[in-house]
Amino acid sequence: MTEGKESARDSEYIATRITADGAEGFPVESGRYRLIAARACPWANRALIVRRLLGLEDAISVGMPGPTHDSRSWTFDLDPGGRDPVLGIHRLREAYFRRDPNHARGITVPAIVDTTTGAVVTNDFAQITPDLSTEWRAHHRAGAPDLLPAEHRQEIDEVNRRVFTDVNKGVYACGFAETQAAYDEAHERLWSALDWLEDRLRDRRYLVGETITEADVRLFTTLVRFDVVYHGHFKCNRHKLTEMPALWAYARDLFQTPGFGDTVDFEQIKRHYYVVHSGINPTGIVPGGPDLSGWTSPHGRQSLGGRPFGDGTPPGPVREDERVDPAHTPLG
Amino acid sequence: MTEGKESARDSEYIATRITADGAEGFPVESGRYRLIAARACPWANRALIVRRLLGLEDAISVGMPGPTHDSRSWTFDLDPGGRDPVLGIHRLREAYFRRDPNHARGITVPAIVDTTTGAVVTNDFAQITPDLSTEWRAHHRAGAPDLLPAEHRQEIDEVNRRVFTDVNKGVYACGFAETQAAYDEAHERLWSALDWLEDRLRDRRYLVGETITEADVRLFTTLVRFDVVYHGHFKCNRHKLTEMPALWAYARDLFQTPGFGDTVDFEQIKRHYYVVHSGINPTGIVPGGPDLSGWTSPHGRQSLGGRPFGDGTPPGPVREDERVDPAHTPLG
Repeated sequence: MTEGKESARDSEYIATRITADGAEGFPVESGRYRLIAARACPWANRALIVRRLLGLEDAISVGMPGPTHDSRSWTFDLDPGGRDPVLGIHRLREAYFRRDPNHARGITVPAIVDTTTGAVVTNDFAQITPDLSTEWRAHHRAGAPDLLPAEHRQEIDEVNRRVFTDVNKGVYACGFAETQAAYDEAHERLWSALDWLEDRLRDRRYLVGETITEADVRLFTTLVRFDVVYHGHFKCNRHKLTEMPALWAYARDLFQTPGFGDTVDFEQIKRHYYVVHSGINPTGIVPGGPDLSGWTSPHGRQSLGGRPFGDGTPPGPVREDERVDPAHTPLG
Repeated sequence: MTEGKESARDSEYIATRITADGAEGFPVESGRYRLIAARACPWANRALIVRRLLGLEDAISVGMPGPTHDSRSWTFDLDPGGRDPVLGIHRLREAYFRRDPNHARGITVPAIVDTTTGAVVTNDFAQITPDLSTEWRAHHRAGAPDLLPAEHRQEIDEVNRRVFTDVNKGVYACGFAETQAAYDEAHERLWSALDWLEDRLRDRRYLVGETITEADVRLFTTLVRFDVVYHGHFKCNRHKLTEMPALWAYARDLFQTPGFGDTVDFEQIKRHYYVVHSGINPTGIVPGGPDLSGWTSPHGRQSLGGRPFGDGTPPGPVREDERVDPAHTPLG
């Protein structure tokens, strides 16, 4: 997603969809598309989690820009020679310009690139994960969970709406506020939503129904960044996540579930926010804290019941070439 | 103290002493001197606490610049007409220039001004509080504690040395670090000292001996600012103070002791750091958090024994004209 431009987001995205029927010219096809998803970015993190939960690793490959980027674009600085090994490009913007030489909107992740042309198909993050659940069903692993169960779809959409506006975007509204009044309003709205979630999660293991859904994925990617960046860098500091008992236990429960914590790179997250946002952190210094050891501590949420994967099963181990540096994230 | 210039501090201060024998031309005299002490400043806060504990309010009056200041000086913007009612000046620098028209060092608080001339006598914060304890003894209230008991003086000095270098100044070393390496070293050093203090305070109520001493005053003024500014603004974020069980209980115990919490203005503290340090916080936005309600919660430290005031007594109520705005600080 484009930093600091959340308010204009709806018109900012390339909304072409990859569908089972290929109605928009891009049919679902194993091996054809590459998901570009920086580990730092919460919106990209959603797609990485859903891809893992659904077992789409073999159907959709992943390219990963590094945590920092200059004013022009995310770059593939972590790859040998600074090039994405499949697309052969240094900067993500090249794939955007292949789609449209006059592309003037954001160069954002997640983006899905058609490897047959090297051009971006879509960067519409809000549509990408639901499409992985529904359009890509033929390629899901055996035992993949249903992240958008029809009987809960309306409630999921309702929860997602408030989580998106007040939490996912709410932390950015605090961090990028340009006046004290705008900040105060955003901070109040964020904490009102977090209090609502704390209350909701006190006696239910997951946000909607008895299993993990898309709603949990969307809240998780903000919660896992909360104490490492949003609390200090974005001044979302009424409390730490660790001081919200239900939310903190809920976040740990998900973190310890295969497909969640194993997609998280705390070091890349910290470097991204603290280095890229020079308007908020002019020194570019990355804090040493917080202590992360609590993420692997017992969460006790099993007593609330729930079946994480419903009738399905957890995903298997992370592919060797996609493992997060264990020095960056404690996985117990 | 001068922001960001801690390393040069020893040569930066006007070291003239006010003594019982008047050896340096400034004899102790009730009503003659005015302590200028912004509530925001931790070094000034020391002097406010010691003055309260020793009952020197009638002997030494207090003037209070507001929390923010421009590049030229602390100003008396909270006073009617923007003038200190006793000294009649708008800016603290005027009192420094009366002492030395060529004064080129910092315009700092705490400063003690001779009201007969309007000139600063001393701003040597490290000497001011010990002198209040020793030189001003004739003016102490009945029941004033001995904050520098002779039998513990050596241990107090030892503890103070590390607390000063690694904690009082250590948080500034983190916040004003100009390179990642300098920050990393400062952060490591700070937390090594805080771990040492956490350990030391686990089974002893006060830092040295069985009573409150100058050592406790000096540590308290940093701890009380820790979560409200140093944790986020200065990136001292391995943990919050509230996550260090012994230190947090110790800080609450002191906060709830007359003479400590009643000198603290959390709102002024926040405004000072977040507004004045535009190099660290260019937006000047002041965070809404943290939640402060924990400061008045039970601390349970009585079970460790200790006698806060030794053979003395707690100070009486705060003078009406010196009370902190209750909207700024929860005092239970």
